[in-house]
Amino acid sequence: MGYFFSLEGCEGSGKSTIAKLLAEALTKKGFRAVLTREPGGIEIAEQIRNVILDRKNINMDAKTEALLYAAARRQHLVEKIIPELEKGSIVLCDRYIDSSLTYQGYARGLGIEEVLTINKFAIEDYMPDLTIYLDVSPEVGLARINKDKDREVNRLDVESLQFHTKVREGYHILLKRYPDRITMIDAQNDIDIVYREVSNKILQFIGA
Amino acid sequence: MGYFFSLEGCEGSGKSTIAKLLAEALTKKGFRAVLTREPGGIEIAEQIRNVILDRKNINMDAKTEALLYAAARRQHLVEKIIPELEKGSIVLCDRYIDSSLTYQGYARGLGIEEVLTINKFAIEDYMPDLTIYLDVSPEVGLARINKDKDREVNRLDVESLQFHTKVREGYHILLKRYPDRITMIDAQNDIDIVYREVSNKILQFIGA
Repeated sequence: MGYFFSLEGCEGSGKSTIAKLLAEALTKKGFRAVLTREPGGIEIAEQIRNVILDRKNINMDAKTEALLYAAARRQHLVEKIIPELEKGSIVLCDRYIDSSLTYQGYARGLGIEEVLTINKFAIEDYMPDLTIYLDVSPEVGLARINKDKDREVNRLDVESLQFHTKVREGYHILLKRYPDRITMIDAQNDIDIVYREVSNKILQFIGA
Repeated sequence: MGYFFSLEGCEGSGKSTIAKLLAEALTKKGFRAVLTREPGGIEIAEQIRNVILDRKNINMDAKTEALLYAAARRQHLVEKIIPELEKGSIVLCDRYIDSSLTYQGYARGLGIEEVLTINKFAIEDYMPDLTIYLDVSPEVGLARINKDKDREVNRLDVESLQFHTKVREGYHILLKRYPDRITMIDAQNDIDIVYREVSNKILQFIGA
């Protein structure tokens, strides 16, 4: 079995950039590193994501959304993450269960326990070996996003600053709940510094 | 609040025909009767159903499917069933939670308890006031279906007789679990006889 790492953080935390750099560095070191994020090119999960992000679907209930995320997560896990772990790969997943726990469970008010329950059904015991949480204030995060104009705008980006503040609070609750699994890194710093910290944590974990 | 009835049964049990006759009869009697079935014309639920029934999606994991059914159920409940109940309507729903419990929970082996858990998240306390289960042997049910050539064929119809036998067993387990909510009616009889029995049960329940 390989290693399963997830990266978490608010919008603009630098998560995706860092995950990409990390995958490249691990590959150069000779590891089989796989960077993925839900839906991860899995056809069924892509179809589910299209339903979630369709801007026409403004009537979508928060529980419907949470169930759809869990469904897409399940299919991505079964079709991509598990086969890679079985090949001995290092899987770097850009967002996983903690995103649902804080976005739907805490920020949308469905309850962390309730959202955990449906996600446990979806992922069974496939929790990440280590989760890197990149902590950034919503103001800094959203300012970073707004600079990047080529980025595709989706339904979630139009959420308010208040919502993103709740998301960050949710991550901090999860940090207390899973102190052994989740590591927080200050992501307000320059991306080079943040990257080095993340990279050190990962290399230390795999003993490289 | 109105009344919430669900109709359940294996393929070819006559469920949909009877539900239609029942809705017409109740309307004639002056009730506001609403016949529906998931996804019930709810755009989001229709999109979810398209993902489930797409014949290309042969890699769909059983848990993904169960989560998608729960998501479609949630949206249909929130957008259609609850508003109708609040108007005082008699809602006749062609399949509801028990279908997931027996098809995914029992017949596909995910576990009735596990599938109940995610469905409880989806429907909260919105259980039917009364569920009519139309009992038919898989042989009789499938023979009835195969006569009806205009019917659209979907991925579930190609399941084996063995699977349908399991589905029926699952319904019998649910009958024992929910003896007060679920009423079984022998649906091997002529449709007129079955209809009369169902109709009597419903009229008795609403005191009409």
